[in-house]
Amino acid sequence: MKSFYFDNAATTAPDKEILSSAASFCAENFYNPSAKYSKALRVRSVLEGCRKDILDRYYARKLVFTSCGTEADVTAILSFGKRGNIVTTEGEHAAVYKTFEQLKQRGIEVRYAKLLYGGAVDREDLLSKIDDNTTFVSVVHVNNETGAVNDVNAIAESIKKKNPKVVFHTDAVQSFLKIPFVPNEYVDLFSVSAHKVCAIKGVGALIYNDRLHVNPLLTGGGQEDGIRSGTENVLGIKTFADAFKKYYPDVEKNYIVAEKMKKAFTDILDKKYFRILSPIVSSPYILSISAVSLRGEVIQSRLDDLGYIIGTGSACSSKAPHSRILKAFEGDAKVLDGALRISFIFDTDISAAIECAETLNAVAAELYGKMNAKR
Amino acid sequence: MKSFYFDNAATTAPDKEILSSAASFCAENFYNPSAKYSKALRVRSVLEGCRKDILDRYYARKLVFTSCGTEADVTAILSFGKRGNIVTTEGEHAAVYKTFEQLKQRGIEVRYAKLLYGGAVDREDLLSKIDDNTTFVSVVHVNNETGAVNDVNAIAESIKKKNPKVVFHTDAVQSFLKIPFVPNEYVDLFSVSAHKVCAIKGVGALIYNDRLHVNPLLTGGGQEDGIRSGTENVLGIKTFADAFKKYYPDVEKNYIVAEKMKKAFTDILDKKYFRILSPIVSSPYILSISAVSLRGEVIQSRLDDLGYIIGTGSACSSKAPHSRILKAFEGDAKVLDGALRISFIFDTDISAAIECAETLNAVAAELYGKMNAKR
Repeated sequence: MKSFYFDNAATTAPDKEILSSAASFCAENFYNPSAKYSKALRVRSVLEGCRKDILDRYYARKLVFTSCGTEADVTAILSFGKRGNIVTTEGEHAAVYKTFEQLKQRGIEVRYAKLLYGGAVDREDLLSKIDDNTTFVSVVHVNNETGAVNDVNAIAESIKKKNPKVVFHTDAVQSFLKIPFVPNEYVDLFSVSAHKVCAIKGVGALIYNDRLHVNPLLTGGGQEDGIRSGTENVLGIKTFADAFKKYYPDVEKNYIVAEKMKKAFTDILDKKYFRILSPIVSSPYILSISAVSLRGEVIQSRLDDLGYIIGTGSACSSKAPHSRILKAFEGDAKVLDGALRISFIFDTDISAAIECAETLNAVAAELYGKMNAKR
Repeated sequence: MKSFYFDNAATTAPDKEILSSAASFCAENFYNPSAKYSKALRVRSVLEGCRKDILDRYYARKLVFTSCGTEADVTAILSFGKRGNIVTTEGEHAAVYKTFEQLKQRGIEVRYAKLLYGGAVDREDLLSKIDDNTTFVSVVHVNNETGAVNDVNAIAESIKKKNPKVVFHTDAVQSFLKIPFVPNEYVDLFSVSAHKVCAIKGVGALIYNDRLHVNPLLTGGGQEDGIRSGTENVLGIKTFADAFKKYYPDVEKNYIVAEKMKKAFTDILDKKYFRILSPIVSSPYILSISAVSLRGEVIQSRLDDLGYIIGTGSACSSKAPHSRILKAFEGDAKVLDGALRISFIFDTDISAAIECAETLNAVAAELYGKMNAKR
């Protein structure tokens, strides 16, 4: 059966050429990059080439490879969220949100900035939470559920004007290689993940200002310049750097294609059934909608049967009844019940996307019909 | 040029069939295992199958997949090394040793048990360090530099007899799938790594008593039953479980083959040049020797040129001049200078091993000759 995939914010299909080439490389070049014989030095040099390929696009940064975006977030937060008060938003990915919660339990004062409708942070509220005792701030770049974009460059600058000592971090997992973005000097650290951009699961990175001293989360053999011990995931890192090299030059071109796709998709959706939750300023790769009064997971399952894979909330925290992030700006349980997330990637087929939107209309019409017949 | 690899304690070549089959699986089945549509549930089910394949061989255990052996060690140590005093040995891998050092810096009392010649822990000294305030003990199963085997089942039992409240952990990275070993009820947690047993880099596991409450190191989406957040490295995990299924049934058979190989290798080595550092009771997969008065890295480099890859100390901490572990039981700088590690794996060719030992003799003879000529 045909199968079209629209849950790319959860994970993407790996680029088959990149995966197969990295697997072939590692089957032969399996040597431990910390060893000192020639074949190991070659692996080390490829690994450092991967780091350089990414860092070349950023000014005065260092990069530590991690095992996922979550590890990058946790490394940043535990490294700098140590004293005074620390500030984040209600719109963070669980990796940031739960780690702040953990620090709260350890007795650190945590402040949460409110969200505007659609999931962007309320910048005024955020700024009001910064004071002289604020040491660390983390604001997600693109909200993983609604696609809302926070202008983290401007936000970081305004925060540093209020308190220059703040260390500013952004989870850039959903914007990396998708939104044209170069962090400015006020953004101290940003987290990225490989499997959201057609590389494989099991690798991410924390990219940071080269004057910053990041504390290791994993201590041991001293790999990654002492910041991240553990034998390097060469296969994963290679797919990551290869995906970066392939997709970085096309970020703007792909952005425009995704914009058209999201607009076409949104235009087709029957507004009798669907409310758009994504705000105007949002990533073209993520569309958050609600089939108000219906249940998102029922629609998801019907679409699945028909060959269209879409998301509900974040795949990472699918155990809670309602999305924490949507709840932060939407109080109506009927809207939350019907929440769905459609997310694209570079090679998503626009005609399949259009079919998917039409199928959503048909399924919603049918389910609303049944619901009304029962009444 | 021919190339024979004898640094398998640093990392192993991945089993090509296992890697290629896992890569093919993940190219198609790339879905996020936390998502709820049918194709994602299939990935989840394969992932849980991997966990079950390993756990089936152990009684009443749980398993959390990590990104490496280091992460497994750090998770165990930070989870339980919290109060009172904590005890380890001078023969630990850096992942354990440095993490204990970090806890020491945080103000926790850390006690180090001495080593016997060859790298096994001095059990009497270890036991003398356990008292009523000891909360956590970590003793490596097989020393990664000398292959010295600590009988962790017996050690754990004697420790618990002295203080039943102790939580006992062992780093089993160098014994897993190599030494016939089932941890008994006194061993609470053990760490393992995939890339030391012909799977790929970037995955490990912490296997633990199912009554134990392990604290997460990575908080976030709540994957791995909340113990380890971050999207699962499906490709790595699949190679790990496949390697486990392939090699577990042959542990004893492979052990005997490795024993013969190590004996043949040791017998050939010219004792005029080489001192054996590995103790009698040691893993057949690891042979630690010293070309006393020569420099290990020079020999390593000469062997490398001739097509034989051997190790010096641990690849994970190759920046220090002398091995910390060897230094713990050997004070003579001339012995430490000449340290080499030869390590085998399941498919190491015995005739190549014999050639390697002969080549070592020839190179040592030549280097000693030159050294004496200079005097």
